[in-house]
Amino acid sequence: MTRRYKAQPSPLTALRMRIPARKALEPDMRKYFAICDQKIGFLPNVLAAYSFDPRKLRAFVDMYNDLMLEDSRLSKLEREMIAVVVSAANRCYYCLTAHGQAVRQMSGDPSLGELLVMNYRVARLTKRQRAMLDFAHKLTVAPAETGAADRRQLRRAGFSDRDVWDITAVAAFFNMTNRVATAVDMMPNEEYHALSR
Amino acid sequence: MTRRYKAQPSPLTALRMRIPARKALEPDMRKYFAICDQKIGFLPNVLAAYSFDPRKLRAFVDMYNDLMLEDSRLSKLEREMIAVVVSAANRCYYCLTAHGQAVRQMSGDPSLGELLVMNYRVARLTKRQRAMLDFAHKLTVAPAETGAADRRQLRRAGFSDRDVWDITAVAAFFNMTNRVATAVDMMPNEEYHALSR
Amino acid sequence: MTRRYKAQPSPLTALRMRIPARKALEPDMRKYFAICDQKIGFLPNVLAAYSFDPRKLRAFVDMYNDLMLEDSRLSKLEREMIAVVVSAANRCYYCLTAHGQAVRQMSGDPSLGELLVMNYRVARLTKRQRAMLDFAHKLTVAPAETGAADRRQLRRAGFSDRDVWDITAVAAFFNMTNRVATAVDMMPNEEYHALSR
Amino acid sequence: MTRRYKAQPSPLTALRMRIPARKALEPDMRKYFAICDQKIGFLPNVLAAYSFDPRKLRAFVDMYNDLMLEDSRLSKLEREMIAVVVSAANRCYYCLTAHGQAVRQMSGDPSLGELLVMNYRVARLTKRQRAMLDFAHKLTVAPAETGAADRRQLRRAGFSDRDVWDITAVAAFFNMTNRVATAVDMMPNEEYHALSR
Amino acid sequence: MTRRYKAQPSPLTALRMRIPARKALEPDMRKYFAICDQKIGFLPNVLAAYSFDPRKLRAFVDMYNDLMLEDSRLSKLEREMIAVVVSAANRCYYCLTAHGQAVRQMSGDPSLGELLVMNYRVARLTKRQRAMLDFAHKLTVAPAETGAADRRQLRRAGFSDRDVWDITAVAAFFNMTNRVATAVDMMPNEEYHALSR
Amino acid sequence: MTRRYKAQPSPLTALRMRIPARKALEPDMRKYFAICDQKIGFLPNVLAAYSFDPRKLRAFVDMYNDLMLEDSRLSKLEREMIAVVVSAANRCYYCLTAHGQAVRQMSGDPSLGELLVMNYRVARLTKRQRAMLDFAHKLTVAPAETGAADRRQLRRAGFSDRDVWDITAVAAFFNMTNRVATAVDMMPNEEYHALSR
Repeated sequence: MTRRYKAQPSPLTALRMRIPARKALEPDMRKYFAICDQKIGFLPNVLAAYSFDPRKLRAFVDMYNDLMLEDSRLSKLEREMIAVVVSAANRCYYCLTAHGQAVRQMSGDPSLGELLVMNYRVARLTKRQRAMLDFAHKLTVAPAETGAADRRQLRRAGFSDRDVWDITAVAAFFNMTNRVATAVDMMPNEEYHALSR
Repeated sequence: MTRRYKAQPSPLTALRMRIPARKALEPDMRKYFAICDQKIGFLPNVLAAYSFDPRKLRAFVDMYNDLMLEDSRLSKLEREMIAVVVSAANRCYYCLTAHGQAVRQMSGDPSLGELLVMNYRVARLTKRQRAMLDFAHKLTVAPAETGAADRRQLRRAGFSDRDVWDITAVAAFFNMTNRVATAVDMMPNEEYHALSR
Repeated sequence: MTRRYKAQPSPLTALRMRIPARKALEPDMRKYFAICDQKIGFLPNVLAAYSFDPRKLRAFVDMYNDLMLEDSRLSKLEREMIAVVVSAANRCYYCLTAHGQAVRQMSGDPSLGELLVMNYRVARLTKRQRAMLDFAHKLTVAPAETGAADRRQLRRAGFSDRDVWDITAVAAFFNMTNRVATAVDMMPNEEYHALSR
Repeated sequence: MTRRYKAQPSPLTALRMRIPARKALEPDMRKYFAICDQKIGFLPNVLAAYSFDPRKLRAFVDMYNDLMLEDSRLSKLEREMIAVVVSAANRCYYCLTAHGQAVRQMSGDPSLGELLVMNYRVARLTKRQRAMLDFAHKLTVAPAETGAADRRQLRRAGFSDRDVWDITAVAAFFNMTNRVATAVDMMPNEEYHALSR
Repeated sequence: MTRRYKAQPSPLTALRMRIPARKALEPDMRKYFAICDQKIGFLPNVLAAYSFDPRKLRAFVDMYNDLMLEDSRLSKLEREMIAVVVSAANRCYYCLTAHGQAVRQMSGDPSLGELLVMNYRVARLTKRQRAMLDFAHKLTVAPAETGAADRRQLRRAGFSDRDVWDITAVAAFFNMTNRVATAVDMMPNEEYHALSR
Repeated sequence: MTRRYKAQPSPLTALRMRIPARKALEPDMRKYFAICDQKIGFLPNVLAAYSFDPRKLRAFVDMYNDLMLEDSRLSKLEREMIAVVVSAANRCYYCLTAHGQAVRQMSGDPSLGELLVMNYRVARLTKRQRAMLDFAHKLTVAPAETGAADRRQLRRAGFSDRDVWDITAVAAFFNMTNRVATAVDMMPNEEYHALSR
């Protein structure tokens, strides 16, 4: 697996940042990377890119894992759907590739992943999903206009106040990572393209 | 100080989330809040708002402190200037209030804080500052169009590849927090308004 | 007071226009400037800037005073609130500084002035104020789409036909002055920043 | 002429405002209206609409006449061209009809009037005219972004600082009147359509 | 008529494409051009421009005639109204000139043609026409957001599914031709300007 | 193949239009559909959808085939690249699915198809391709602003006047079909998703 990582032929990003060898990582991060290798089959480039600075890597991993993997009334698939809809609005190549694949895999429906990448409005969704994605989309493209009326729409679709926080937090997080990935021209791992088709 | 926190008359956000008493916080966070009390004179509402969940609070604090306080070739004032310019583009009331105050204080120039809140293009800036803020602004309003040409502009203004990362990371972070604050209608502490005028 | 005016260290605008000495002004305008000195404590730079041409100065003053000070069912504070919301949409530094101060002073609520500068949607407003500001904002950013439905919203909030004219006229006027101030880079008097905090 | 005015079958605007009989106007305005009758062949509806309030009528007439008829290095045709380009950006039916006719008449080129109404970029213009209209258009659609670089473009095309003021003032004025006319649904006189074809 | 075509003094477009003499056209197209001469009084420049390639000319003519002249529950005037509203949104000089004239002629109401060119929202329309033009306009400026809710609005205004197709097809067609005409700077025949005033 | 067509389980579009059996098609169209079956492996839904009206089907097929398959100095892959970039700007699910697949297949580079769907600016392109796609994108999102300067960019990248026409015509065509497909909610054949990965 280390081999695959080292062999990465194209640069991770447009910035020349010295990426440490894996063995130079702190033990818990080395372990985390190994788990990625196992579970995903490769190390997502975003993690390699952030590893130039241990503190930034850890802050990113902690926030990501809390939002996407910890307890929430939003299912993991729903969180990935938000990730894709936000990334589509921002046209982030890295995040659309990685999280589009996650939606294809978790939903077992390849065309759902494509729909969310291309135009989520066209997808056949439940009322709950539609409300969730409409909120995430508006918060992305018109944050200054998102407010009480939009929260009401979420509540009408059955979401609690805590759910509103979680939808918000995931949508906001990808508004951050989309901008990091695009600004530094981060390239996704080639492996994503063929998976879960 | 705990008193001030408890006495917070208006709700922190539009969401009803149970905020724990300070003594219920984990020790390091309790200590961190106490430092805020001392240094700022009050606990920023964003920290109180995030404290409903210890993991989310810690993830937020770690990322914030790394970006805004740790080593970087960007000065702390420059990072605050980026925060304000991004928050102005997104019209985030909380962040403009809190970080506008930070710019007023750190720069010793109240009108600079106002200028960045209102229209940073009008401010008299160095070429370096202008390039930095133009990049942060474009990454905020047109992320899909930000790329190689924009990175070149930063390099022409003297920024290194690592600096490009840091400018990106700060601008991207406030694109996240602006959306969290606006989506949940987070209100800034009243104290900010009168400070550093 | 004349001293303060003469001492104005930074140029009023980016244009080199010969500004006459006060004593060269026509008597009624000299008197009007003196009243400004007394009431405001200084001469607003916009008046100094317009004084390069007596006819233009008079036309500006007449229209301004009619709209902002003459009889109307809109209170003077309400007219200032419209001024700030329009200027915020257009990001006009001069007008936000001057009229933001007016809102702080007239309302006795410094945070209201800040809210309207930053994002009026976040402010706690009466239904009447909200309708008035929504109309002014839409007329500013989407004039071609403002029409019968928007006038109906005003009427539902209790405004008469004459009120609709007055809201329109104030919002339209600041769409003019915002553009003059921004296009010539007019700088507001420094005194505004510290007032009514 | 008074007859034509009274016969106006459709309402001047969507607002019910009591318009006084001409003989009730103050003498100088009555005279001004009579001159309009003679020179134009009818009284422009905008003047009838403003006559509900003598002070507002006078303020409008004074500013209009100063900008459009008084001394300036901009020709009267150039000022009308700015009026049409601004009104096209704002899609103001009243102003496009009235000032489109003025361009057709003053230029002796009906297709020029049409071009400026439809898309000024397509017109064959001198470098001076192009620079002037590009500035007026940008100031209309993106006022917050109009600044030093745009003023430089005007200077490169041969305009003085005073000319910059005049271009700005005319463009800004129509940003006001466009919004008044659209917000109250002001209808232009039918006569304009057939003139100068 | 051939004479008028040959005499065309200004180039048809900004592209130097060899336009064949009429006698070199295939017989059916030569006949079609002769019918245009007779019916319209001149050959529309768009046909001359497309005649550089017989296959492209025929494809354009076939699609145009099917959409604008064949059976449909939309009247020919309604189709022309859609053409103008789409072309106004795209600010296409050629199509606004040619189809604005068609609306003036077919409706017998010169001001209707002008209204649709300038701002269709201001026109006094039937509920049916308003729904039709709102749909065409939205499909032009926000295609990604046009969907089920917009189709429902059409059905509520009395349109059948087939009508929805026809409205869509005409609006979509002018989104094509507007872009061809603008991209190659196609100039409309001068004759249009004076017709049907 | 007819079977597959008949078995189409989900409706082709949101409109209830009677689609004739294949044997009811005119002979040349029946033959054309059979060729599609053979070459593509299925009948693209757009053809089935248009077959409700023989004249409209023929007009669509003739124009499509002329633009995408006939002689041009643009390669077929280049035309498909334009199709995808235009469809991405308009977020057309049908066209992105069908033509994204075409780019994957013709280029032999699955990630190129994904890049153009997601954000063509990120793709590593030749100067020629970049100029071509920048023109097509601008013509899609800002047709009124596309003109002489943009044509110059194409010529600088080596394109002839005829090439400018061809780029324009393909980009304009997909601005039509994107709007037809989105407005009627046309669904692409499921087969596309798995092809050429």
